[in-house]
Amino acid sequence: MATEVDLQAALAHAIEWAQTAGTMIKQAWRSDGVTIEYKSSIDLVTEVDKAVEDYIMAQIKKTYPEHAVLGEESASAQGAYSLEAVPTWCVDPIDGTTNFVHHFPFSCVSIGFCIDRTPVLGVVFNPILNELFSAVRGGGAFLNGEPIHVSAATSIDRSVISTNVGFVRDAAGIEFILENMKALLTHNVRSMRSLGSSALEVCLVACGRIDAFYEFGIHPWDIAAAVCILREAGGVAMDPDGRPLDLTRRRILAAAPGLIEPISQALNTHPPFLPQ
Amino acid sequence: MATEVDLQAALAHAIEWAQTAGTMIKQAWRSDGVTIEYKSSIDLVTEVDKAVEDYIMAQIKKTYPEHAVLGEESASAQGAYSLEAVPTWCVDPIDGTTNFVHHFPFSCVSIGFCIDRTPVLGVVFNPILNELFSAVRGGGAFLNGEPIHVSAATSIDRSVISTNVGFVRDAAGIEFILENMKALLTHNVRSMRSLGSSALEVCLVACGRIDAFYEFGIHPWDIAAAVCILREAGGVAMDPDGRPLDLTRRRILAAAPGLIEPISQALNTHPPFLPQ
Repeated sequence: MATEVDLQAALAHAIEWAQTAGTMIKQAWRSDGVTIEYKSSIDLVTEVDKAVEDYIMAQIKKTYPEHAVLGEESASAQGAYSLEAVPTWCVDPIDGTTNFVHHFPFSCVSIGFCIDRTPVLGVVFNPILNELFSAVRGGGAFLNGEPIHVSAATSIDRSVISTNVGFVRDAAGIEFILENMKALLTHNVRSMRSLGSSALEVCLVACGRIDAFYEFGIHPWDIAAAVCILREAGGVAMDPDGRPLDLTRRRILAAAPGLIEPISQALNTHPPFLPQ
Repeated sequence: MATEVDLQAALAHAIEWAQTAGTMIKQAWRSDGVTIEYKSSIDLVTEVDKAVEDYIMAQIKKTYPEHAVLGEESASAQGAYSLEAVPTWCVDPIDGTTNFVHHFPFSCVSIGFCIDRTPVLGVVFNPILNELFSAVRGGGAFLNGEPIHVSAATSIDRSVISTNVGFVRDAAGIEFILENMKALLTHNVRSMRSLGSSALEVCLVACGRIDAFYEFGIHPWDIAAAVCILREAGGVAMDPDGRPLDLTRRRILAAAPGLIEPISQALNTHPPFLPQ
């Protein structure tokens, strides 16, 4: 079954959808009339997220009616989702919605494709900066068509490491987040970043602009595409606790290969707010 | 004395110097041969910083031989500096050097001008994204020639707040940094960012892309230009403890006016690593 999907043809489709979605995002970016809904005071959604997701979902259903689809907004609306072994598209219409709403130019559309629960295709497009990351399994990773590679970093004290500072707000969750930042600062990390888009942050690791990214709280649509891009760029994506990456387990460590072990050892990988 | 400086003429000069400096930075960005020196493992300088500072210093001395000049690299080399009431240019050749070295497109050249220790002119130019922020006192603030304004935010839980996570590495300093992040997370801040360039982060506040920025550890060359831009955009720059901003006191809270009081009250403003 799985081998019947022509990944290069699928990539061409995904790039076309991402570019059309990017035009929709960019038009909304330039207007001031975007309506914001609050899934919670720290989780926003706009009508642009919904329109972009509807557009991409319709394209997928038309082009690949036999494939499964997992989209952020539809999954959120349903309240539950699963990722099975069947060929499945994972779509985040706008990753970095808070940045989008605040006009910080670091948002993207993310279109990933999984077989056997493993990302085999990824397109991540930031239409504001006009940067399109892409990969299919075995074909290398690209930024606007140019090959990209992860950094050669091997020690925390020569690394720039990014994370999402604010995905939970209860006391135990805040302690967990800060405990991990403290561990990296104590290891004399060169610098920490927090940029507000996991898909783009994993892509920044892929192209060597930062050395590692970790997060507890992600969903498959946030990272499926970027994980394929990262791996094709020579990077490693795994569970921070050392297990293989499980896209539904809500956690990721994405890094240059030389950093996986030191970061995994430095972090507490058992967040109190997620199942272990 | 002070009133004899034609600020509009000075602005035209500063923009020209920033654009030439931007070309130098962009050329180096595109090459892979930048040599890095380590002031410390977390404080980098490249030959590009030095070449850009030399160029701008030479222009200032030629155009305004009667003015004082404060540049990051020359002040660092001397080990000490002072900012007096005389007309003084404050130059950071590359703010965000770590970003520059890591090819994260969030670095800038910053050229500020102070009279009576108060910023009256600022030019901050990110040549990679081609964004030039500018202002002179009383003339409004601009991004690529278009007027900019701070956000209307009035509460922490609807705000994106940025800070520098890693300016110190001793245990008491790390505790102080994390204590302040904890305070904002406990106040349910919408999102935190850490972007690695104080000059650009203050400019992001000026144009409403983020709502506030604070840092303990800055120098006059980091923020003199951006403070003028922020104030002309309707924002407030002050000492986080409520006192007026003193550019040499190493601390700043830059925010939309409605956020100054809640953030100032939430933060511990007495870092153990700086004189009080």
